[in-house]
Amino acid sequence: MSFKTLHRGENCSFSPRQTTIAGKIPYTQRQTIIFDNPPHIIGRMSVVGTKEGKGPIGRYFHRVLDDDKMGEKTFENAEIKMLTSAIDGAVYNSGLRPSEIDLIISGDLLNQVTTSNYVARNYHVPYLGVYSACSTMTEALDLASTFISAGKFKNVLCSTASHFATAERTYRYPLEYGCQRPPYAQWTVTGAACTVLSANGNGPRITMGTVGKVVDFGTTDLNNMGAAMAPAAMDSMLALFKETGAEPCDFDLIITGDLGKLGSDILRDLMTEQGYYLGQRYIDCGNMMYDVSQNCYQGGSGAACSATIFNSFVLDKIFDGTYNRVAYFATGALMSTQSCYQGETIPCISHAVVIER
Amino acid sequence: MSFKTLHRGENCSFSPRQTTIAGKIPYTQRQTIIFDNPPHIIGRMSVVGTKEGKGPIGRYFHRVLDDDKMGEKTFENAEIKMLTSAIDGAVYNSGLRPSEIDLIISGDLLNQVTTSNYVARNYHVPYLGVYSACSTMTEALDLASTFISAGKFKNVLCSTASHFATAERTYRYPLEYGCQRPPYAQWTVTGAACTVLSANGNGPRITMGTVGKVVDFGTTDLNNMGAAMAPAAMDSMLALFKETGAEPCDFDLIITGDLGKLGSDILRDLMTEQGYYLGQRYIDCGNMMYDVSQNCYQGGSGAACSATIFNSFVLDKIFDGTYNRVAYFATGALMSTQSCYQGETIPCISHAVVIER
Repeated sequence: MSFKTLHRGENCSFSPRQTTIAGKIPYTQRQTIIFDNPPHIIGRMSVVGTKEGKGPIGRYFHRVLDDDKMGEKTFENAEIKMLTSAIDGAVYNSGLRPSEIDLIISGDLLNQVTTSNYVARNYHVPYLGVYSACSTMTEALDLASTFISAGKFKNVLCSTASHFATAERTYRYPLEYGCQRPPYAQWTVTGAACTVLSANGNGPRITMGTVGKVVDFGTTDLNNMGAAMAPAAMDSMLALFKETGAEPCDFDLIITGDLGKLGSDILRDLMTEQGYYLGQRYIDCGNMMYDVSQNCYQGGSGAACSATIFNSFVLDKIFDGTYNRVAYFATGALMSTQSCYQGETIPCISHAVVIER
Repeated sequence: MSFKTLHRGENCSFSPRQTTIAGKIPYTQRQTIIFDNPPHIIGRMSVVGTKEGKGPIGRYFHRVLDDDKMGEKTFENAEIKMLTSAIDGAVYNSGLRPSEIDLIISGDLLNQVTTSNYVARNYHVPYLGVYSACSTMTEALDLASTFISAGKFKNVLCSTASHFATAERTYRYPLEYGCQRPPYAQWTVTGAACTVLSANGNGPRITMGTVGKVVDFGTTDLNNMGAAMAPAAMDSMLALFKETGAEPCDFDLIITGDLGKLGSDILRDLMTEQGYYLGQRYIDCGNMMYDVSQNCYQGGSGAACSATIFNSFVLDKIFDGTYNRVAYFATGALMSTQSCYQGETIPCISHAVVIER
């Protein structure tokens, strides 16, 4: 059965600008923003660790580390170095001078987003720290696009990073403990990514953004992130589709952040229940990151998971004309170890952007 | 000597709109945003703990707790309950229905900003998590004003919270350890605050925002926050003054977040060195929060310190006409315990907003 037989309308003729401005969704509680002057993507860089470099899409990444510690004494310092490398590379790729960057928006998974804070210290540039777990990249892109579209800043840099060794220490157990992983677990991606947006340029544009709501379906297992995040992805996807009148077939590609194999299967089912058949145009970055032989079970996770794939594989295909309109839903689990130890469930969120060539 | 004798120009005739649009500061690296359609402050609420309620400005707060644990099993849950109380109160004060809130921007001091995440779970409203330590309130106000000014959201809620017991556990030592505090230490404020901004209304307006840069002068002592943050406050204050052509006498009141007694004395010295005499129009929220008899040494700190005072004492005085133009610089220290244990210094930041009646 082809996906054509299930999606709701045969003729997809989506015009976001028209449908939303004339839309029937009331202003209040509307989650999707249409950018009046959509910013261009003018620079990007992805850096990944050794394991990610050996995965199925390893050849797309701009830099693959041969030492996940990068010669540093601590994994935290390696993460800082990796994010710095991604930012420097993206600025170089954009053709801008570092002094032409007006604003850095960055976040990561560590307590008090320290990686981003310590990286921002090295650039004498206005800085906004954000926290949205693995959905950081799209939150940053939404904010940057708002600033640029409103004419408040011209060149804005969005970045994020995660590191397997620092994330395990922060969220689960120290690596030395050698804790056994359940089959539904995911593997935090070691990587960093940066996107440079600008009011000027010729690159693809971010035309819309959807700000997610916090959704909690009651999952308590710190290892089962995919199942926890799938309902949040559904919530934001429905918001984007309903508020703009779009359907899955209006997009050449729909990507989610890091639901993994299990989580993305759950999302497909949830969306089918809602009358939207995602079909082959839907991929999940967590699901793509590792080969089954790499023993990462449900796949990748972490703020860098979708951010590195978006800035390499996905943008490559947008730049070369394979895809013209892509919806990118990064997904984040908003718990801390403290809250889970205290018996709390895991609230999740998904922010989205639409990129058009 | 009156402050009049030291500040640079006798005739202060600051017109922000005129000076900035016609300003000579290049677009690139400009930190100050002028909001084209300045949002109104239409609702607010401050909630504080017992100790803060007994302080010199205790009578200004809207709610003073009689139990800092609020009947909850954990201090973390008390912080969540306190922030919920502030949000509900501010929405009620604004005259809006909860369903009319379009966006929540919130952050706090806990790992992974869990307080804000868990509070946002209870409101089915788009949510953006931010992290800027004790400078969270002004980062949120800057973002909210940008969204409203650009016409993307109408009613936006900015909130933050901190709790002495959860912050000590997160940043320093467990309370049970009974660690002795050095004389230059500050006391994390137990409190929560919320401001509701709207495109419509009659309240005071947020006319400008300054996005801070990360500044690190090499302080390593987790207890000496005032000294670490003063240079960041200076950096943002100089940016606002230089980019708009303003001088201290153009403001009826200049407030900083939580530099405390020591930090605010350092800031006065730093600004005098730069040719700006702050004089009596400058106050620090950390310095105001406690009486010397309360044994809090240099004063209050924490995200709620300036946020609660801004939403009570300061806005009261703006609403009643005592002050017509106020500059509010919240200051944040961006370290984590992990980074300090690894020998890192403390990077700091200060975001600012200008409120005009």
